[in-house]
Amino acid sequence: MKPIQVGLLGIGTVGGGTFNVLTRNQEEIRRRAGRGIEIAMVADLDVERARAVVGEHAKVVADAREVIANPDIDIVVELIGGYGVAKALVMDAIAAGKHVVTANKALLAVHGTEIFEAARARGVMVAFEAAVAGGIPIIKALREGLTANRIEWIAGIINGTTNFILSEMRSKGLDFEVVLKEAQRLGYAEADPTFDIEGVDAAHKATIMAAIAFGVPVQFDKAHVEGITKLQAADIRYAEQLGYRIKLLGIARRQESGIELRVHPTLIPAKRLIANVEGAMNAVVVQGDAVGTTLYYGKGAGAEPTASAVIADLVDVTRLHTADPGNRVPHLAFQPEALSDMPILPIDQVRTAFYLRLQVADEAGVLSRVTGILAEHGISIDALLQRESAEGEKNTDVIILTHDTIEGSMRKAIAQMQALPTVLAPIVSLRKEELA
Amino acid sequence: MKPIQVGLLGIGTVGGGTFNVLTRNQEEIRRRAGRGIEIAMVADLDVERARAVVGEHAKVVADAREVIANPDIDIVVELIGGYGVAKALVMDAIAAGKHVVTANKALLAVHGTEIFEAARARGVMVAFEAAVAGGIPIIKALREGLTANRIEWIAGIINGTTNFILSEMRSKGLDFEVVLKEAQRLGYAEADPTFDIEGVDAAHKATIMAAIAFGVPVQFDKAHVEGITKLQAADIRYAEQLGYRIKLLGIARRQESGIELRVHPTLIPAKRLIANVEGAMNAVVVQGDAVGTTLYYGKGAGAEPTASAVIADLVDVTRLHTADPGNRVPHLAFQPEALSDMPILPIDQVRTAFYLRLQVADEAGVLSRVTGILAEHGISIDALLQRESAEGEKNTDVIILTHDTIEGSMRKAIAQMQALPTVLAPIVSLRKEELA
Repeated sequence: MKPIQVGLLGIGTVGGGTFNVLTRNQEEIRRRAGRGIEIAMVADLDVERARAVVGEHAKVVADAREVIANPDIDIVVELIGGYGVAKALVMDAIAAGKHVVTANKALLAVHGTEIFEAARARGVMVAFEAAVAGGIPIIKALREGLTANRIEWIAGIINGTTNFILSEMRSKGLDFEVVLKEAQRLGYAEADPTFDIEGVDAAHKATIMAAIAFGVPVQFDKAHVEGITKLQAADIRYAEQLGYRIKLLGIARRQESGIELRVHPTLIPAKRLIANVEGAMNAVVVQGDAVGTTLYYGKGAGAEPTASAVIADLVDVTRLHTADPGNRVPHLAFQPEALSDMPILPIDQVRTAFYLRLQVADEAGVLSRVTGILAEHGISIDALLQRESAEGEKNTDVIILTHDTIEGSMRKAIAQMQALPTVLAPIVSLRKEELA
Repeated sequence: MKPIQVGLLGIGTVGGGTFNVLTRNQEEIRRRAGRGIEIAMVADLDVERARAVVGEHAKVVADAREVIANPDIDIVVELIGGYGVAKALVMDAIAAGKHVVTANKALLAVHGTEIFEAARARGVMVAFEAAVAGGIPIIKALREGLTANRIEWIAGIINGTTNFILSEMRSKGLDFEVVLKEAQRLGYAEADPTFDIEGVDAAHKATIMAAIAFGVPVQFDKAHVEGITKLQAADIRYAEQLGYRIKLLGIARRQESGIELRVHPTLIPAKRLIANVEGAMNAVVVQGDAVGTTLYYGKGAGAEPTASAVIADLVDVTRLHTADPGNRVPHLAFQPEALSDMPILPIDQVRTAFYLRLQVADEAGVLSRVTGILAEHGISIDALLQRESAEGEKNTDVIILTHDTIEGSMRKAIAQMQALPTVLAPIVSLRKEELA
């Protein structure tokens, strides 16, 4: 059989990796797919760079629409990124009857519903394993491997840049700004790292995972997003003393009334496997009612790890190419007519435990007022640590770990504590998850 | 559409779990599969027990062949175990045109080739996610999620009983026999634990993973199998001092000349994630040339974790039921006509590092003779630790970590060292893997 014909839109890091891995492992991949997979055409504005990568093996054009218009192309791989051009091209490819493989989490987290509907109407597949956690087959695990389960929650380290920064902050005791510069120098952070360090990238991925886990539409606009830019080295140290690590987690959790969807720095017990995921690595923990806890770990970014996921999708599409469209794996794991309208909860209704750090005047009665306010809001204390003040020092740090509470109550309690004259600096609050 | 009709052969622990999870999550599962999945018939010799589980929801019979003969049944789930009856029933079910789901690793590791050929000829699916690592979707990851990769090696903690025993031996400093009794009392080890503690169960699973990873037929008879029964608490302690943990690993590794397939107690660096997998949990590390290292962690046994995998297979089969058989995922990941004849290597040709413990006379020249023998066989030393002998003690322990070597060379060197008059007890040798 003639190899399946693939058109690549964009041949930067991931595109180059995809071409290289497909070329290097073509025999192995053909043995698996039952058919060759061939990149026949590449579109990139930088035609010279594209030619340097693919040589004589594929036709290179500047205009992506030429790839889409080519009747010989079976699958279009979109590696341009972003919401604008990429969206138009994906929609065009679908309209032209092409299967689509994409690594574009931003696009799917925001416009996924529209894209999946178009693909379904046209009878083509849209595959996106590379959009979440790079080479780790987490989409497949959630969409196919864990279908027996009522998923209870997912918690993932799904942004390598921030995990690298947090690892360095902890192991070297350095501040955020210093480590960010080092990460940029080493290529772990981009020149403009905003999407990573502000948690937006992780929120895109968490949005996609939440949709697949719970059978709800993608709803990026409902996600609560906090990055790591305000995290201080002192809190990483205090957390460690208490037996916790701080990780930027993307969390999606089922509550009675809806779904928590949130990204924020989180304390997790140091003994958990995921707490020991260091550097630029990714890991996702999934809690299902039948399977219990499972964890998936690997490289979340980089040319070849991401290519690994892109090509896995190409093999899946190739294997299913002639299959009855009605029996394909649904895009969001659940059949489109069976999606749920369970709401994504506002952050005020989310339940977590908290770490609080209060800089207080070292005088009688302070602790009693602080704990009194917490009690008033029904927040109970799990552990309390008061730093011994140095000779002559007039203030000290009080660290409080709370039991689970509703975020709305905590916010009110924090506002009241902040108003105490004996609380001398802005209160640091971080969420804590046991992930048990 | 009418729910797909499932017949269950055997309703013990896993069968009961499968029925319960399917019942509890039926709505969620239908939303994913696009069609209901219904256990319509159950065969079990203990008809009373079966009726107690399924009530009025399924027809109960004593004879499995009644299930297979029923034209309404689409999928037969084999949960009997073992090679004998189970094999005959699986072959009959295939011949009757039923899709088969099985959790039977022993059956597949030994008779897989014959079973897969029959299934292919008859155009039915045989799915077996539950056969390896319980609820962890590792078969799916290897067969579909990592298809881009030339797999380099796989190393897994794939037997919960032995991992529980090793965890307890380490954390409590107890001997094997004591912990085994505790494990039996707690239900982590069976009354006859031979298959688990001798490594046979892990070897069945490693055999299946090796076939899928490298595209070779299942060849259980070529596996090198060592259990944990001879492991001594002293070596767990020495390993820990050197920064290692001892785990029973199932390892499959590609060498130039063939495939290493082996199960044995293994030293691994304590800082590796998999070294921290404790108790009855399972984890598999896969090294691919594109994706790098990925790890999959979860419960490897138990009623509902195993049911999770069985039902994932039921959903897969349901989704693919009407699909073109030529485009299904091949049983062993690679197309049957594309299997490789790469040999499974004899253990003598396997390359690993070693941990050696020699009880020696505490006198001059001993170390020089021992290290001389190693040098003679081209084995270089990575680390050496000599226990300080107590006042008046005439012998001591020497612990040696070697660099990678061929097992054949090491065996010769050990025989020579053992013959030294200053070596006072049988030399303990354990393999060490960096898993980097």
